[in-house]
Parts: sequence; structure tokens; C-alpha cells
Amino acid sequence: MEPIRIMVWGLGAMGGGIARLAAAKENLRVVAGVDRDPAKIGRDLGEVLARDPLDLVVESDPAAALARSKPDVVAIATGSFLREVEPQIETAVAAGANVICLAEEMAYPWAVDASAADRLDRLAKSAGVTVLGTGINPGFILDTLIIALTGVCHGIRRIKGVRINDLSPFGPTVMRTQGVGTTPEEFARGLADGSIVGHIGFQQSAAMIAAAVGWRLDRVEEERSPIVSTVRRQTEYATVEPGRVAGCRHLAYGYVDGELVLELEHPQQVVPAAEGVETGDYISITGSPGIDVAIKPEIPGGLGTIGIAVNMIPHVLAAQPGLVSMKDLPVPAFFGGNKM
Amino acid sequence: MEPIRIMVWGLGAMGGGIARLAAAKENLRVVAGVDRDPAKIGRDLGEVLARDPLDLVVESDPAAALARSKPDVVAIATGSFLREVEPQIETAVAAGANVICLAEEMAYPWAVDASAADRLDRLAKSAGVTVLGTGINPGFILDTLIIALTGVCHGIRRIKGVRINDLSPFGPTVMRTQGVGTTPEEFARGLADGSIVGHIGFQQSAAMIAAAVGWRLDRVEEERSPIVSTVRRQTEYATVEPGRVAGCRHLAYGYVDGELVLELEHPQQVVPAAEGVETGDYISITGSPGIDVAIKPEIPGGLGTIGIAVNMIPHVLAAQPGLVSMKDLPVPAFFGGNKM
Repeated sequence: MEPIRIMVWGLGAMGGGIARLAAAKENLRVVAGVDRDPAKIGRDLGEVLARDPLDLVVESDPAAALARSKPDVVAIATGSFLREVEPQIETAVAAGANVICLAEEMAYPWAVDASAADRLDRLAKSAGVTVLGTGINPGFILDTLIIALTGVCHGIRRIKGVRINDLSPFGPTVMRTQGVGTTPEEFARGLADGSIVGHIGFQQSAAMIAAAVGWRLDRVEEERSPIVSTVRRQTEYATVEPGRVAGCRHLAYGYVDGELVLELEHPQQVVPAAEGVETGDYISITGSPGIDVAIKPEIPGGLGTIGIAVNMIPHVLAAQPGLVSMKDLPVPAFFGGNKM
Repeated sequence: MEPIRIMVWGLGAMGGGIARLAAAKENLRVVAGVDRDPAKIGRDLGEVLARDPLDLVVESDPAAALARSKPDVVAIATGSFLREVEPQIETAVAAGANVICLAEEMAYPWAVDASAADRLDRLAKSAGVTVLGTGINPGFILDTLIIALTGVCHGIRRIKGVRINDLSPFGPTVMRTQGVGTTPEEFARGLADGSIVGHIGFQQSAAMIAAAVGWRLDRVEEERSPIVSTVRRQTEYATVEPGRVAGCRHLAYGYVDGELVLELEHPQQVVPAAEGVETGDYISITGSPGIDVAIKPEIPGGLGTIGIAVNMIPHVLAAQPGLVSMKDLPVPAFFGGNKM
């Protein structure tokens, strides 16, 4: 069988990881890599990925790259928000390519802009391609995995999902948007001016769960508060003194007919172990039967996002055309073909 | 929207549970119940299910019930083995009904008889209906859930799944087929003569996982041994004296190119807590990333089987025609519409 042709648009940590993983699989062929960073453009993609050369130069013009390389699927890893990636998805779809997009808001784009989602759906259908948003979270832990577990239930009263992770491996951008190292006052100002955002994806996860299990959510409320450290915490990119902020405790609550039915918690901080906090993914379904799941430690965010993006490729290629979400496709599965 | 019409074939513990759950949902309508037990035939189905009358009499002739009731889907809960349910599935498919079958061997029928599976696939396709085998295990814990978790992996070296459950609620048939209450010598003879079988479904779970993640399994070896109790264990249907057998420790090992890649363990016994054994479902993936999942206590087998059979109905109705397995359909999800 001919390998599946993939173009990767955005060669940061996530897109670079997708390109690296794809290049290591016999059943995938990386046919283009696109980025806007002048330090990457024009260099061999393999070199940019810190691996063997790929005889492929990083390009700056997505439309030209699409026309030249004719990919079956484009992985878009350029931003978090629908408005950023929407024109990019349109460009890829117009070239007849399927799309897997890592933008958090694309995990369930109906949650943020239903008319934009419907427009993408129509475009994808008329081009005969499938568009999917995915990632570890939103995309898997606090939505797809929860949905799968509800599949054994006779009734559901409440769902709680908690993802406790360690931000230590992440770089300056994540430190800044989570408020790591700030004073509690700076954290409050950052929340107010939008420079500290916490997790992006609760609205998407909540809407996907609701659509899957038949809930009509009245509203999804979010709460963000600083995780103030009592000890010194140190990572490569951040130092947190006692009394400073180690991260953002971000919660979401979903209501049906005024009743709390969904609690999602995602406290993100550096070195949680410094205060004895164990990382993990936890899902608790109150219902019949009740279900309590613990994944310890948590499934790592970066690895998991790259993995699920690549593993969903065959499902996306086999799907009916249109804009889909993880709840619409077959259960995720490891996509083999790793070169030895 | 018109409710989905369901016929339930086999009104034992599982089929009866499906009929009861379906009758409690606004989006399902139980249109026929079929059983071969003279004590049930001719009685009101609701009464047989120990609930309000359903104005529906338990029938003995499946073909007549199908012709009269024109179900969208038939739930078949009559036996464990493909050869038992195959003619029943054919009857339902010939009547133009989709099928959800609880026979363990139907969870992945290609594992036991690929030509029978292909024949069912052709029949279903020519009738324009979908046939699915499901259940809690095989069907969910030791296959679908494992597959879903591999969806984040870059590589997999080994998968281990363990389901430790408590047989105490089950009746005489389960006690007998698991060897509960026997001496170790009787247990050995029961294994030899086939009266003690342990778990049915390892071959199916292993084959489904392998197909999903791209493994070519050389072989799947199974081991059964007695769980000999050191204490007295008592349930409604069984008494186990010290030195007697409390259940069957059933293991399966799958190999690729001679290397062990899959371990499935399913020790089934009465009152495991009597010796401090905690029940639970455990999945451990050795790979990148490694994943360790614990579900404590285990998702209950009877409830879970009934739940997933009913919850898969909309996915089966929306699927392409043919014989499918859980890996082919969208992630399971709670199917709402419970009457208040």
C-alpha cells in the first residue's frame, strides 16, 4: 500500500513532533513542512526536526506547498483559536486535503462559533474531505475517554474529570499564559487583561460530552485561581519562590436545568510533587454503574497530543466527508508501521 | 423523532436487563420479546421483567415476532458461542433488522471462524443492516478501552490488561462453569472435560486489539488454574470451604514474532475480599508514553454488558452495513432519553 502523504503546517513543539513521528512510520510519508519562522524556512526539514535529512525543504507558502506536495492529510499546529486556524483549514480543504488540527477550539468548534463550524463542515463536504480537531486535552482525556466510559452506563447523574499535570517541561510561553512565577496580584491582573488564560478547551470538552450523552447544558462556568506555592519550585524556564504562583487552578462546571452535572478540573503548575501533589488523570462518573478511573501519572500532554494526532490519520481518511469531532470517529487506536 | 424499535431475543439475566433498560427510555420502544422458556412464553413481557405491564406478550417464534414487530434492531442474548447465535443472527438479518449480539464469540467472530464471519458480513451488507457483537468483556474492558488508550501512543511494546471481579452475584450456571466449590482435582477434571471453561472471550479481545494496533499475532495461549481458597467463602449460590476452589484464574498471552506483547488476566472468583483481593480493572501499556489505568472497583459485568448493548444501538443504526466490531464504531456513549 502506498504510504499516506502528510503535510505538517506549523513546526513548533507539537507540529515538529508530528512530523518526526510521521517520518518514522512506514505507512506515512511527510511530503511538506510549512512554517513562518525565517530560522526554519529553506532548511532541510529533517535537520529542523533534529533527525536525519528528509530531502525536503521547510516552506513558507502553504498554498504552494499544498499544490506541489498533494498531501492526503494536513496536520495544522499553528495556534489555539478557531479564528487563527479557520483560514488555514480552508486553504487545506480547498486543496483537497483532509485536516487534523491541534487548535484547542477545533476539538469542538461548535462550542465557540457554530456558524464558523457549519461553514467548515459545508466546505469539507463539498471538497469530499474530513476535518478533525484533536489533542490530548481537549480531544481525549477530559472528553473522548469520559464519553467512552459512559458507554456502559444505564444512567448518569454527574461526571467529574480531573487532570493534574506538571508544567515543568514546558517553555516560556506556557509559563506566561499560566502565570507561573507571578505574585497573586500580578496573577489577578493577568487574568483580568487576558494575558493569563489557564487551560483552553473546557467549553469544547463540555460541549462534546453533552452532545454525546444527550445533555442540554444551560451553561458552562469557568473559574481560575492561582496555585500559590509554599515552597521554592525550580524548572528550566521558571523559578517560583514561596508565596508566588506555581500555576493556574482552572475549573469548569456544567449545568442542566440548573443542576450541576459536569465538573472538570485542570490545575496546571510546575513541580506539583514539591508539595506532595501526585499527577494523574481521574474520571469519576456518578451513575449506574458508578465508575472511578485513575491514570497515574497523567498521560503526558505533549507526547499524547502528537500521538493522537498521528494515530487518528487513518480514521480521518476513512471517515465520511465533513467537520467531525472525536466522538464521531471510531475509537482511537495506535497506528502501527513504526520503522525498526 | 420516532423511538427506535427493539426486539429482545433471549430474556435471561442479560436480555431481560436489556429489555428493562430499553423500556425505560423514551427513544426506544420494545416491540417484541422472545424466549424459549415455557414459563415465560405467553406472559406479559413487563410482568416477566418484574416491572409494569408492557402490553406485549413473550413470544416463542422469532421469525413470527420479527415479521409482526418489524424491529429496527434485535438484541440477541441467547448464548456464548458463534455456532449457537449464527442462525439467530441470520434470521434477524433476513428480516431486515440490525443486530446487537451478546455472545462472547461475536465480539470478534473472525477469531473463531473467519468464514462464518465473512458470511455474516455478506448477509448483513446485502440486507443493508449492521451486526455488532458487544458486552463488557469481551467488548469493552479488555479490548475497546485498551485500544482507545493506545490512541495516544507513539509506540507500544507490551499491553497488560487485568480484570479482577467478584462472581458472588451470579447464579448456578456461572458457579459451575467457573468451578466454584470444587476440589482442585474436580477442577482439573472439569477443565479437561470442558465443563469448567473460565472466561470466554480472550481470543476475541486479543484479535480485536491486534487488528486495531496492527499486530500480527503468532498465537494466543490460554492458561486456566484453580483459585484455591484458604478461608470459607459464602454466597447465595455457593459455599467454598478452605482448600476448595473459589474460581478460575484465567490468563492469555499473545505473541508477535515470538515475543510476548499481550497479557490478559481475568481471575474470576466468589468473595475475593475474603482474602484481601481488591476487585478492579487494570490496564498497563508499556510504550511511549507508558500508561497505567486503574478502575476500582471493576465496572460491574452484568450492568455493564446491558448498558453497552443498549448504548451502542444508535451507533449500530448509523453505521455502514456489514458485520462490525467495537473497534470500527464511534466511541461508545451513554444513550440518553431515560424517562424520569
